[in-house]
Amino acid sequence: MTLTGDLLIGGEQVSATAGTMKAFNPAEGAFVEPEFAFGGPAEVDRALRLADDAFDSYSHTGLEERARFLELIADKLEAAKDELAARTSLETGLPAAQFEGETVRSAGVFRKFAAVVRQGRFLQTAIDPAQPDRQPIPRLDHRLQKVALGPVAIFGAGNFPISYSVAGGDTASALAAGCPVVLKAHNAHPGASEIEGRVIQEAVAASGLHPGVFSLVRGSGNEIGEALVDHPLVKAVTFTGSEAGGMALYRRAQQRPEPIPVFTEMTSVNPTFVLPAALAARATEIGTGLVQRGMYNVGQACLKPAVLVAVEGPGYAELRDAAITEVEKWDARPMLTPGIHDAYLRHTRRHQDNGAVRLAEGGAPDGGAYGQALLLEVTGDQLLAEPTLREEVFGPALLLVRVSGTEQLLDVARAFRGQLSATLHADAADRVTAERLLPVLERRTGRIVFNAFSIPQEVSYASTHGGPFPATSDSRFTSVGMGAIERFLRPVTYQNFPDDLLPQSLREANPLHLWRLVDGELTRS
Amino acid sequence: MTLTGDLLIGGEQVSATAGTMKAFNPAEGAFVEPEFAFGGPAEVDRALRLADDAFDSYSHTGLEERARFLELIADKLEAAKDELAARTSLETGLPAAQFEGETVRSAGVFRKFAAVVRQGRFLQTAIDPAQPDRQPIPRLDHRLQKVALGPVAIFGAGNFPISYSVAGGDTASALAAGCPVVLKAHNAHPGASEIEGRVIQEAVAASGLHPGVFSLVRGSGNEIGEALVDHPLVKAVTFTGSEAGGMALYRRAQQRPEPIPVFTEMTSVNPTFVLPAALAARATEIGTGLVQRGMYNVGQACLKPAVLVAVEGPGYAELRDAAITEVEKWDARPMLTPGIHDAYLRHTRRHQDNGAVRLAEGGAPDGGAYGQALLLEVTGDQLLAEPTLREEVFGPALLLVRVSGTEQLLDVARAFRGQLSATLHADAADRVTAERLLPVLERRTGRIVFNAFSIPQEVSYASTHGGPFPATSDSRFTSVGMGAIERFLRPVTYQNFPDDLLPQSLREANPLHLWRLVDGELTRS
Repeated sequence: MTLTGDLLIGGEQVSATAGTMKAFNPAEGAFVEPEFAFGGPAEVDRALRLADDAFDSYSHTGLEERARFLELIADKLEAAKDELAARTSLETGLPAAQFEGETVRSAGVFRKFAAVVRQGRFLQTAIDPAQPDRQPIPRLDHRLQKVALGPVAIFGAGNFPISYSVAGGDTASALAAGCPVVLKAHNAHPGASEIEGRVIQEAVAASGLHPGVFSLVRGSGNEIGEALVDHPLVKAVTFTGSEAGGMALYRRAQQRPEPIPVFTEMTSVNPTFVLPAALAARATEIGTGLVQRGMYNVGQACLKPAVLVAVEGPGYAELRDAAITEVEKWDARPMLTPGIHDAYLRHTRRHQDNGAVRLAEGGAPDGGAYGQALLLEVTGDQLLAEPTLREEVFGPALLLVRVSGTEQLLDVARAFRGQLSATLHADAADRVTAERLLPVLERRTGRIVFNAFSIPQEVSYASTHGGPFPATSDSRFTSVGMGAIERFLRPVTYQNFPDDLLPQSLREANPLHLWRLVDGELTRS
Repeated sequence: MTLTGDLLIGGEQVSATAGTMKAFNPAEGAFVEPEFAFGGPAEVDRALRLADDAFDSYSHTGLEERARFLELIADKLEAAKDELAARTSLETGLPAAQFEGETVRSAGVFRKFAAVVRQGRFLQTAIDPAQPDRQPIPRLDHRLQKVALGPVAIFGAGNFPISYSVAGGDTASALAAGCPVVLKAHNAHPGASEIEGRVIQEAVAASGLHPGVFSLVRGSGNEIGEALVDHPLVKAVTFTGSEAGGMALYRRAQQRPEPIPVFTEMTSVNPTFVLPAALAARATEIGTGLVQRGMYNVGQACLKPAVLVAVEGPGYAELRDAAITEVEKWDARPMLTPGIHDAYLRHTRRHQDNGAVRLAEGGAPDGGAYGQALLLEVTGDQLLAEPTLREEVFGPALLLVRVSGTEQLLDVARAFRGQLSATLHADAADRVTAERLLPVLERRTGRIVFNAFSIPQEVSYASTHGGPFPATSDSRFTSVGMGAIERFLRPVTYQNFPDDLLPQSLREANPLHLWRLVDGELTRS
């Protein structure tokens, strides 16, 4: 595929209307061809009118038709794997092999959502049959299914250029729900975005769907994102990125004449708690594992275990030594953008200004936007006294928190804001403390991991990638896993309908063989 | 029960700290004893600290224990039925028999939510077992259930003093989810609110629950509601009322440091569309039925069919004549408050200033806050040209819209904002038009009714009482029906947990006999 740098609006390739940009290779410190188009509010409007035009037909596609469309995207993604991985490597300075894996995983996500669509359980069909003889008044027949919300605006994320970007889980789940997508590509990887976008655009055309089902726009600055969030035809927004960026979009969308759901996944330090018996038994393993997980993707992962809390006592020194040894093994690597690298330096300096002790560092950077691995340490008292020490440092820094005892460990747990995940390392002798800690963690996180590390994120039915604020802006939903589709659906009840005017999912004979809730009981008949 | 007029905070009765009020009997035009206490932000804070204290224990109650608590509320409500109905009648000027029925229905709602709790399906448990041999990396065991959000602030509604108020569906569904409730009582019916609140307070005590599970506050002006919405310990808000009031709360909550979900149910004209063959066949029946439904509760119902759209042609004159005849039968009746009556006069006048023709009126008011039934008519051209004609007039006014043909009927359908419900009257010969109209309605409403009228609202599994903005502020949820519980839940995943640290709902042996999604398949084993 020859990259043209165009915007993809409906079925068309659209040239720049607001300047252009080039991708930046952070490993080489150099810009890369070709030029990529920027658009503005006019392109957003054009994409959304097409998406709105596409909505009625796309949201009413049959389950099999929609599932095949998602599978076609998966096939085409895999076919583009080598090209996509090579280009992404060029735009990130990270190894192509990482992106081959990410392409395969993303294709798998589209296939999993195809299965979700075929199963049809996301329709959450329920039937309360008529009760003509009920006293004091008869009951009319009621039948409920979920329907698609409308066109969805998706902000491609910077840190995973495939799986959280154009061909990522947000797009897969919105398309699975029956929502057309207008995607704002992230400027850190414009070529990868174009390849992914053209894969989807081609699948739309090959499936005979309305071209408005998918568009990709790109812009400089905030104007294009604001135009997307403000547009009256957008009915939901997803965003993965910083708390400042996410909350700006969130609050803006809530001030529209018609507020709309905005699912932002923002910030999490994913605290790890090591209870005393586990610490005494497995200090080296935990310290080494922490760093190995923490350095994944140069520490630029939502699920990085950024903070480890353990009681000063047997094993603590060993855990610290193991972490020091491991951190020193890691070379500096290119970060996503120079801006993110600057923020990394600023935030690690802030931690140290606030009393964090520098325990170890990895190999020195060659220069440029290379992130150097860093291990810091504070006491529980310090962490409790200084809120910024509990905030995320995006990049390859890890923080050990040495607490004075299990009571302070619990106090530290209570001091954290909402998290995507928390991890507990505990042995049998830690049971009493574990039982006290679990409800504290449950209130503050969407996922609790026991005696393991929390990444990589599974994409399955029992996955939660969400959590209380500021991990996300709506903890009732997940952005990863099969439940992610629920962000884009709403219930509609059909009351007293003749069978032949009902949607297929609700007809008396159950032609789609769905699990349905009939009078409150699940049945497939 | 002797009314004391106190606030109910946790297990205690709390005296006024910010003045008092008396209930107003709109039929007599006179105030009624006793004095009811107003509180302020200090009482809100006290209630929320108690609710937060109660959260860990209440949200972890066993399903059977929680179900019995809800059933005890139902029993106590029914036991208080005569007293509650008499007091509500006094505070509304409407017949006690109406409120006996409402009490029985509300008790039924608590029993239905008890059944929902026992079934445990609201936990939406999912299990993805470990796959230690999976390539390229093993899968850890993942288990998901829904957990309660935290303390919920509920604004009691004015129009249904029981079923949408203190002992209404919002309270039932929040308690069913495991969330403590702080209720702001509506000042239109303080005595009814106290009776309902004391029923719940007694059930909390008799069930041995933490007293912070339920509190009732009351205040003058907006201060108390703002204090509730602003309080950092509140994790969700529900509101039923006007668009202006609901959106003020909604936007305020989104500007908090930590935004929270606010489910507001606000405004809907529930348009009725009569297609030509149905009109020709059943004009009189439809015209009469429209008015009979529309006059329910003096037209102060969320589901009032406020606007009827029909093509000028065979049957139209008969429909109009039937509606005129029926409207003229209705006497003026007391409205909820003098302020609502003033708004009713203002809005009916605005409709007429904007060209609506006065076709008929009911009996004249005795004076005071009595709402007089009113039938108005506009053309489709007028409705399309003037947006305020598409807005709700809260009270016993109905609007006929005479459209020039089915194309204009479709245009009118497209012009409406989001609705709680829409109704379609169609016969076999209307099939083609019905099939064009249905997707238009589906996009704009949470419920479509076929050849019937849309009230009363069923409280069942297939119920939706929700819809696109401005019917609600989040169309992904319903406020009535068993799905209402979903507003107050969020997913948590337990990863790699030992069986005996898992919640009961997720243990391997399925001790609660729940339907669970295991590897994507529903099973009860």
